[in-house]
Amino acid sequence: MIGLWLENQILSLRHDLQLPGVGTGEALIRPRLAGICSTDLELCRGYYPFQGVPGHEFVGEVVEAPGAPEWIGRRVVGDINIACGQCTACLAGRPHHCLRRRTLGIHAWNGCFAEYFTLPVSNLYLVDPEIPDEAAVFSEPLAAALEIQSQVPVQAGMRVLVVGAGRLGLLAGLSLALTGCDLAVVARRPRPQVILREHAIPYLAAEDIPPHQADVVVEATGSREGFDLARLAVRAGGTIVMKSTFKGDTRLNLSELVVDEITLVGSRCGPHPEALRLMQTKAIDPCRLIDAIFPLADGLAAFEQAAQPGTLKILLRP
Amino acid sequence: MIGLWLENQILSLRHDLQLPGVGTGEALIRPRLAGICSTDLELCRGYYPFQGVPGHEFVGEVVEAPGAPEWIGRRVVGDINIACGQCTACLAGRPHHCLRRRTLGIHAWNGCFAEYFTLPVSNLYLVDPEIPDEAAVFSEPLAAALEIQSQVPVQAGMRVLVVGAGRLGLLAGLSLALTGCDLAVVARRPRPQVILREHAIPYLAAEDIPPHQADVVVEATGSREGFDLARLAVRAGGTIVMKSTFKGDTRLNLSELVVDEITLVGSRCGPHPEALRLMQTKAIDPCRLIDAIFPLADGLAAFEQAAQPGTLKILLRP
Repeated sequence: MIGLWLENQILSLRHDLQLPGVGTGEALIRPRLAGICSTDLELCRGYYPFQGVPGHEFVGEVVEAPGAPEWIGRRVVGDINIACGQCTACLAGRPHHCLRRRTLGIHAWNGCFAEYFTLPVSNLYLVDPEIPDEAAVFSEPLAAALEIQSQVPVQAGMRVLVVGAGRLGLLAGLSLALTGCDLAVVARRPRPQVILREHAIPYLAAEDIPPHQADVVVEATGSREGFDLARLAVRAGGTIVMKSTFKGDTRLNLSELVVDEITLVGSRCGPHPEALRLMQTKAIDPCRLIDAIFPLADGLAAFEQAAQPGTLKILLRP
Repeated sequence: MIGLWLENQILSLRHDLQLPGVGTGEALIRPRLAGICSTDLELCRGYYPFQGVPGHEFVGEVVEAPGAPEWIGRRVVGDINIACGQCTACLAGRPHHCLRRRTLGIHAWNGCFAEYFTLPVSNLYLVDPEIPDEAAVFSEPLAAALEIQSQVPVQAGMRVLVVGAGRLGLLAGLSLALTGCDLAVVARRPRPQVILREHAIPYLAAEDIPPHQADVVVEATGSREGFDLARLAVRAGGTIVMKSTFKGDTRLNLSELVVDEITLVGSRCGPHPEALRLMQTKAIDPCRLIDAIFPLADGLAAFEQAAQPGTLKILLRP
């Protein structure tokens, strides 16, 4: 089969990939659409030494499922963390933090930028027919955005600022807006500004952030500058949610966090059922974030475009 | 009057201090006992450029209260944050985070290591006669320990580790033990170990911390080593409460916090009423932490002893 292959930070298109074997309890999935995410771009830059097929955002169709025929032909999205089911984290009901987890297209498990890939059927979620592929493919990043609210209860009236209006920052903004919180998004490019305006979500420039007023700040840039803006924006006693990974170490004055009683919350993967529900009810329509859909065979060009600053979502169609 | 005086990081005993003026809405207080805290020691080392009378842990008697005669003769403890009442933090009900706050014996307000000092009467809390002075003087640090639970709900059965068994670490341990959580304290000196054993609180050496198992870790050392132990102890998805200030900047790998979904909570001053209640019901008796009581005139010797590693609480009696 054809697919993208990452090795020594070099991404290539290969035509000679083996069809993956499918164990009992696993599903062989044909992706219908797959999304390129910042993590994929970071993997190409060496953020993590992954070798294999990248890709973890998908909507696909199950073509084989040994021992679970009820899944065959179903349209699915899926959780990217493959848990062992036996470690203390799994037994405590936290499979996302499985101590021996593998991660679709990120760590020790081939991803979805290929004609076929596998996942345990316990990772799968059925997609309602009302949700088009172009929305369903956002289930993973939208779930990650919703993880913010599963960690930090956001109430109507709370002052919330999202720093960064890229792929994830916009999804965070769209989902937080539904809480009735007093939301603003730091956005400097015209395209995100248009999308925010369509949703009646206020945006502002970094220079216009009112200092120390936000109850909750979502850092969605993964840059030192973004973190500093979040620190400026948050009020004493408030919370900064770190939604993006940061390169290398960051120097922090922890005493200031103590004196100002700031809470920092690291935030990663989130709940697919909630993401699907919000897309089914059309409370969130992420399709506006799509910049382009490339055939899988043009995957390298797709990655090039995804890496351009200001690009929102690039999809691959195998 | 006599009192301790800090100037250019030099602490001295002075006999020529002026009796403080007392404005309307303020109380002139004669301390009955005052406690030396790590922050006082840090001020002497230049943590913050304070000039004046240090001291912020006290139980005292109100001797003057212009406009509020009902306070005269009352035995009180008090909140150390003097709030403006007019800034956005005050108007939002967060006077501890007043943007223009002064802090008793720490910032722009003379403290309680003197024969007399002042506080706004709105900062005062009446001490029940059942609470001896030797316990009441712990109201401020015990309130600070209880702030942990006002920020992070600690439930019965949760695995909680306190790193550091100094003054604050022990008070954190004694208060957390009341929740029914599965508690342990990292303690390496015999004296805290004895106190913990008396309270049936398990303690362990740093080398014996089980990695990545604690739901909540309280960092009460303010050292890089303590933070690293806390990071080792906390499970993915867990919380580290930073209860001590840290010198300078600390290099952190924020990506690890994101991937492991760790929450860092800065924690400072807490609620006096709850601290007083726990001492009144004898649920917590902090008197066991007292190492010595010095007359105020021997305050310099008291500071010397307080600075010795392993010393718990040194009190001053004016």
